[in-house]
Amino acid sequence: MAMVCLLDFEAYAEKYLPKIAWDFFAAGADECSTRDENILAYKRIRFRPRMLRDVSMLDTRTKILGTEISFPVGIAPTGFHQLAWPDGEKSTARAAKAMGTCYIASTYSTCSLEEIAAAAPGGFRWFQLYIHRNRAVSRQLVQQAEALGFQGLVLTADLPYTGKRRNDVRNGFRLPPHMKLKNLEGAFEGDDRSEYGLPPNSLDPSVTWDDIYWLRSLTHLPIVIKGILTKEDAELAVRHGVQGIIVSNHGGRQLDGAPATIDALVEVVEAVRDRVEVYLDGGIRKGSDVLKALALGAKCVFIGRPALWGLAYKGEEGLQDVLRILRDEFRLSMALAGCASISEIGQDLVQFSKL
Amino acid sequence: MAMVCLLDFEAYAEKYLPKIAWDFFAAGADECSTRDENILAYKRIRFRPRMLRDVSMLDTRTKILGTEISFPVGIAPTGFHQLAWPDGEKSTARAAKAMGTCYIASTYSTCSLEEIAAAAPGGFRWFQLYIHRNRAVSRQLVQQAEALGFQGLVLTADLPYTGKRRNDVRNGFRLPPHMKLKNLEGAFEGDDRSEYGLPPNSLDPSVTWDDIYWLRSLTHLPIVIKGILTKEDAELAVRHGVQGIIVSNHGGRQLDGAPATIDALVEVVEAVRDRVEVYLDGGIRKGSDVLKALALGAKCVFIGRPALWGLAYKGEEGLQDVLRILRDEFRLSMALAGCASISEIGQDLVQFSKL
Amino acid sequence: MAMVCLLDFEAYAEKYLPKIAWDFFAAGADECSTRDENILAYKRIRFRPRMLRDVSMLDTRTKILGTEISFPVGIAPTGFHQLAWPDGEKSTARAAKAMGTCYIASTYSTCSLEEIAAAAPGGFRWFQLYIHRNRAVSRQLVQQAEALGFQGLVLTADLPYTGKRRNDVRNGFRLPPHMKLKNLEGAFEGDDRSEYGLPPNSLDPSVTWDDIYWLRSLTHLPIVIKGILTKEDAELAVRHGVQGIIVSNHGGRQLDGAPATIDALVEVVEAVRDRVEVYLDGGIRKGSDVLKALALGAKCVFIGRPALWGLAYKGEEGLQDVLRILRDEFRLSMALAGCASISEIGQDLVQFSKL
Amino acid sequence: MAMVCLLDFEAYAEKYLPKIAWDFFAAGADECSTRDENILAYKRIRFRPRMLRDVSMLDTRTKILGTEISFPVGIAPTGFHQLAWPDGEKSTARAAKAMGTCYIASTYSTCSLEEIAAAAPGGFRWFQLYIHRNRAVSRQLVQQAEALGFQGLVLTADLPYTGKRRNDVRNGFRLPPHMKLKNLEGAFEGDDRSEYGLPPNSLDPSVTWDDIYWLRSLTHLPIVIKGILTKEDAELAVRHGVQGIIVSNHGGRQLDGAPATIDALVEVVEAVRDRVEVYLDGGIRKGSDVLKALALGAKCVFIGRPALWGLAYKGEEGLQDVLRILRDEFRLSMALAGCASISEIGQDLVQFSKL
Repeated sequence: MAMVCLLDFEAYAEKYLPKIAWDFFAAGADECSTRDENILAYKRIRFRPRMLRDVSMLDTRTKILGTEISFPVGIAPTGFHQLAWPDGEKSTARAAKAMGTCYIASTYSTCSLEEIAAAAPGGFRWFQLYIHRNRAVSRQLVQQAEALGFQGLVLTADLPYTGKRRNDVRNGFRLPPHMKLKNLEGAFEGDDRSEYGLPPNSLDPSVTWDDIYWLRSLTHLPIVIKGILTKEDAELAVRHGVQGIIVSNHGGRQLDGAPATIDALVEVVEAVRDRVEVYLDGGIRKGSDVLKALALGAKCVFIGRPALWGLAYKGEEGLQDVLRILRDEFRLSMALAGCASISEIGQDLVQFSKL
Repeated sequence: MAMVCLLDFEAYAEKYLPKIAWDFFAAGADECSTRDENILAYKRIRFRPRMLRDVSMLDTRTKILGTEISFPVGIAPTGFHQLAWPDGEKSTARAAKAMGTCYIASTYSTCSLEEIAAAAPGGFRWFQLYIHRNRAVSRQLVQQAEALGFQGLVLTADLPYTGKRRNDVRNGFRLPPHMKLKNLEGAFEGDDRSEYGLPPNSLDPSVTWDDIYWLRSLTHLPIVIKGILTKEDAELAVRHGVQGIIVSNHGGRQLDGAPATIDALVEVVEAVRDRVEVYLDGGIRKGSDVLKALALGAKCVFIGRPALWGLAYKGEEGLQDVLRILRDEFRLSMALAGCASISEIGQDLVQFSKL
Repeated sequence: MAMVCLLDFEAYAEKYLPKIAWDFFAAGADECSTRDENILAYKRIRFRPRMLRDVSMLDTRTKILGTEISFPVGIAPTGFHQLAWPDGEKSTARAAKAMGTCYIASTYSTCSLEEIAAAAPGGFRWFQLYIHRNRAVSRQLVQQAEALGFQGLVLTADLPYTGKRRNDVRNGFRLPPHMKLKNLEGAFEGDDRSEYGLPPNSLDPSVTWDDIYWLRSLTHLPIVIKGILTKEDAELAVRHGVQGIIVSNHGGRQLDGAPATIDALVEVVEAVRDRVEVYLDGGIRKGSDVLKALALGAKCVFIGRPALWGLAYKGEEGLQDVLRILRDEFRLSMALAGCASISEIGQDLVQFSKL
Repeated sequence: MAMVCLLDFEAYAEKYLPKIAWDFFAAGADECSTRDENILAYKRIRFRPRMLRDVSMLDTRTKILGTEISFPVGIAPTGFHQLAWPDGEKSTARAAKAMGTCYIASTYSTCSLEEIAAAAPGGFRWFQLYIHRNRAVSRQLVQQAEALGFQGLVLTADLPYTGKRRNDVRNGFRLPPHMKLKNLEGAFEGDDRSEYGLPPNSLDPSVTWDDIYWLRSLTHLPIVIKGILTKEDAELAVRHGVQGIIVSNHGGRQLDGAPATIDALVEVVEAVRDRVEVYLDGGIRKGSDVLKALALGAKCVFIGRPALWGLAYKGEEGLQDVLRILRDEFRLSMALAGCASISEIGQDLVQFSKL
């Protein structure tokens, strides 16, 4: 089977992963409207490609928070990589480094931050944080991440509680016994691990904007907030001093009915007025999707499920394949749209279809 | 089979109910466009969820006409509950009381109002009225309801004649002989019971707005009008002194081509300008639908078919399951949208998709 | 099989008619977009139904060109009724008379105008004219129709040439040898009857607006023009002195890509400003479709294919069934929308869905 | 099997061509959205047909760059005609001449320009140019085309690199060994012919608008630029002195997400303001599509895949069939829309559907 586009990796993963793992990765909240809209929304955006520009030299490099990446596609934080590949997040870290891009490691990793850091020394990584009721746990993780060389802290804002994913309920999904949330080992007493390997309700639903100041007090890392979908929250984020915003609906896994991220991006970018960097995740399946997101103002995009499919295919090597395909498709799309470098990608490159 | 969402109850009911009963409950007028639009219209509404608000304490309580309910979902009036479960409306009354919400008992109940009242003493109930040609019948029912402690009178305005439901015609639907419209027993002479267990044309198609005054003269109960779909009728309702309006198209069973209730809600709420309470029924299948309706100005929603599916599943217990799922989904949706209480739900929480 | 709605008659006709006849009646031009749009366009129109109006007495009567019909649905001109039922147009004439409505007999009838007139003496009929290259043929037909008591002359304007209906080409459709275009017998010399039973190109494609004056000189009958789809042509029709306009796209059989008639109606009605009566054919399948057309300004609608399905089912009796169902559905829709008579049907009863 | 419309030829070609050849001709970039939109976009355009105009004499002739063609449909440049029919482009040239229209021969022909010219002496032909890195190759081809009597030079602007066509990648598509790109024989050294029969990256991605001046210096032929989709590029094309613009997205084979050509046409025509001629290719499947394109301002349209289907059916004769069907459908559409000649086709003949 030739792996030509990201959908080939999806088909592979669906075929070879255990159903319970596939269902967990594929899950969306409720009726999965938002999950599916993330993808469909790209199809309603049309390019306005420009011709006869010199595209013999193509440069896909960009910088996020000052660090160069080889092309504007990073790895979004997702949990439980060992469900996809035995080496788990260690493979992810290696693939991201090999491809010269950024990997956001999740609090819910099945490898520890030390293991991740050791697997790919010098790699460009951010750490994604869920704030737990036990704030000491969170503080420790943030400080550990900084100490290990992670270069950014990503606060997930859209999960005060876990969304209702019907198939996970039906399957009674929980992490297999031989996998651990390594970053949280020992953090909780007792044996109940029924909620994704943690005691129920261990996350803190009382987190507010003021907790950005608390995080600020813990670390020198730049803070990126993930899960913003409105101009109002974008403004609040800027005012509370974050360095970046990831427009995200958690892959459609939290509030079903939330807008597609590419649709929400427009509103957020307009509100932010270049004061901080804006990124996006959700629905990226082709290089041209990346180009559309950049044209609408994203500095970089992140992939979630496609990275997991790559891992499921061949671990580090499979994820590199996924990233390489996206990079090559993105580069080709740039050329066919008349852009030789990232700086030439502007808003007049796209228009929303009236349909 | 795990009962995870309301659609599971629908599938159960379709599988286990006699076809003629299923068809009757499922029926819509003509091509069922309006019935189906009731559901589809929700999918065109997008949330604008807000992040980083303290949602550790969630309060779903609200009041309708001054009475508190534990969450803003009541039981819409539907007929013939014994078709779904042997105990019929008695089970419905018990489930509604147990879950702390309002049950609107139909004129076309297969249990009498006394039986309903006795089944769940102290429960919060309204009585739904069809006005019959024989006005004495209607007067007696209204006064009986008031005497039995029903706390509101709901006048159905959209059924001067019964809509054309093709499958009911094909099936030659009529109530099985062992079931009776208990509230109307003895009200009509003769044996012809061919129209839903009643003599044909027993409803009065000459009812007009002035009959609100007549009802007013019969009872001290607040009057709620059900079946309003336009701003003009909303204005008339307010002027005629009703206390509440249920935006309803009778589940799409009357005039096919009428708008989805969530679409009509906007126009009605705007016209009413908070002078009376506005409710809605039709198409509620998930907690997020409830949240959308409240964001657009409904004080409370009512469920029709899903209640029947709950009954068909396990009677009182099944209906409690349905209500509990809706309540939990609603609460989770509130939290994920950044609302800790009903009063925080506002119109800026939603927007209509351009598609 | 219960005949509950018009689609039941369609299914019957498709099942029992010879394929070549079914295909001919069902045919649309090219890809049948316009044929199908005629129906789909109704689904995009929403009612704004009004409640609590006295609808105990319902009156569906109206007048077209001064003659009363019992409800606003007539029989559109279609050819070759013997393909559907042995008695052909004689059955059609009887059914229309029995139901108290207007029948527009086609030039391409398989019964002669005399036979049609004799089959239902005193019936309300108009005669539909195609102008042939041999103008003497047309003159004679017009004068014969007037002499036989036809009360209106309908000029079809949209068939300078016959549209391309792929299945008819594939089937090599022609009239069976035992059927004749009785009104045109002897009108043409030679044996070539390859185009719908006539010599090829017998229709005159050079007809222009001035020919309205020529028709005017031949007859005292009111002239109705059929096939108008634009405001410009509506204005020309009024200026040339016609008494009525039928908004029609020939059932989608001529120019594929022409608008649905219910969409074009709005533009035509606006241009005509009540100076002449406006009718519509195309896509009427339910009583509520009739109500929508009247709300948008049509004085009456005409049915084409549904009449043929009625004939195919049981001749005169089957067509009466079709008309009766439409009448009853229309009456019920009126009542449920709050209209007791035709004069109460206004434009505020409908709105175009944004979708 | 009767060949009634162009889709019949498509079905034939899909059935009888080797899969690898069918896939190559059918291919679109990525998800084929643009390829499919090219066709779907026509369905969103409605005619505003005019009635009672004298259409007894129909004239479909027009001129492009001063040369008369018998109807406004030419043959777009496509490669590798021997994949469809053994005689390849020689058959194409003969069919185009026989039908009195223009054939744009591709750089990637499997017959040489001499063979093409000799096959149909005196035929009206343009030559399509890809500019190669080796500019001498391109210069020679242009001068050879002019010497051989080609009357126009068409520069393809939208292929700095080849689009990603998934099936071609899966199939490992390359030209069979017995076929040659005759115009490029001897132009490249070495044996690697892996990219469509050429060495990889032989096209020059550094071509810019200034190269129009270079082409101008090589030939007296009028220059037409193909692949323009925006008003900005249309303005640049006019300013750089081209004589014509073909609005094209390369049949959806280059940048997936580019607009349908009929949608882009409106913007280009408006920008050009009649300073040069505007043509279109992409999605033409029926005569009414041609009429829509002309109504929106195209001087002429070109067909790509349908020409190949015609070749695959019966070579020269099959392509004539395709052209004849399109011509007859176009003529009939003109008549049914009330246009007797090309000059009567105006913008008020169409409107974009709101849906």
